[in-house]
Amino acid sequence: MSSSFEIKIPGSSPIISELIHHFNSLPGIGPKTAQRLAFHLMRMPKSDVESFAQTMLSVKSNTLFCTNCQNITESNPCAICNNPKRDASRICIVEDPLDVIALERANCYEGKYHILHGVISPMNGITPEDIKIKELLEKIKTNTLTEIIIATNPTVEGEATAMYIQKIISPFDIKISRLARGLPSGGILEYADEDTITRAFIGREDFD
Amino acid sequence: MSSSFEIKIPGSSPIISELIHHFNSLPGIGPKTAQRLAFHLMRMPKSDVESFAQTMLSVKSNTLFCTNCQNITESNPCAICNNPKRDASRICIVEDPLDVIALERANCYEGKYHILHGVISPMNGITPEDIKIKELLEKIKTNTLTEIIIATNPTVEGEATAMYIQKIISPFDIKISRLARGLPSGGILEYADEDTITRAFIGREDFD
Repeated sequence: MSSSFEIKIPGSSPIISELIHHFNSLPGIGPKTAQRLAFHLMRMPKSDVESFAQTMLSVKSNTLFCTNCQNITESNPCAICNNPKRDASRICIVEDPLDVIALERANCYEGKYHILHGVISPMNGITPEDIKIKELLEKIKTNTLTEIIIATNPTVEGEATAMYIQKIISPFDIKISRLARGLPSGGILEYADEDTITRAFIGREDFD
Repeated sequence: MSSSFEIKIPGSSPIISELIHHFNSLPGIGPKTAQRLAFHLMRMPKSDVESFAQTMLSVKSNTLFCTNCQNITESNPCAICNNPKRDASRICIVEDPLDVIALERANCYEGKYHILHGVISPMNGITPEDIKIKELLEKIKTNTLTEIIIATNPTVEGEATAMYIQKIISPFDIKISRLARGLPSGGILEYADEDTITRAFIGREDFD
């Protein structure tokens, strides 16, 4: 057991304090939520806690980056890259493995992916060398591709990364597309920000 | 590794899906947060993940109920019960170990505790026999107490439990008190509910 947690929660034993600190170190989990989770865990059946802990360890030791798409996977190549039904001539570029989950859930795309594992962010010292752009270029050079869909987030950094990628891959004779911008489904026009409305106007489609 | 998680997250490997499901099983952690936590964990240093998993297992196997106050502890009696500086003649009754943490943080009480591990809730089938009331009575019978402070939550069930406890311990010659009700510090009168305002009026104190 690690002794790296010296902060003692008043009214709580050292081991419980340590568990609370571990939960508290996760993103978006504040001290109160961490306490609640720790005490919930103590009330869970032992077998469930063991399975949870085992999965944590196992995820760390049994996962690797797919050498093809850079997704986190147990098998290399990953299930998507290894699926002969997926269109290998199209690549959708995303920032993060969570984006792949979101797109797969939408079930609207049958090509393959490339995961950047980040965005270019000069403010945070993240340069193109720090994300998986070299691997992307390598893949473009060695494969016959028909389309590259850039699906970075519509944020300042996501946009900048999209523009950078567009610039470096434009010399290749491949169609480059981007996800459409506009009003989100279920969104309310009244509450949409100006940029979203502007984009929805610019991208307006014929009513057919 | 448990194979109890059959649900596959699209675009994610089985082991990652399993980790997401484990996080999702915790209270207040929805599917999106569970995904975020799982992928955060995969990016954590291996030693941190090992320490986290080890703490989870260790909390489960190394904690027990303090036979005196019923708190969850590593040592029996717990650190509070074992502390000779704490006033053993006073007992503060709380619903949950988290309440002890909250009270200890306030640093306003030097007596001991009794943790009920729940509240009486006929709606949920929780009777006095299901919470640690028998142990409380045993303690009252065998110890010389000067005061019992009932600190259950000011909710319907907490109030009902407080009234039940007050009734069963009133035959003993011990002062019984309750935490004050009124406006919370930093609260805004305008937003306080009617019951809180009523209680604050009833409990009003002389300006001295």
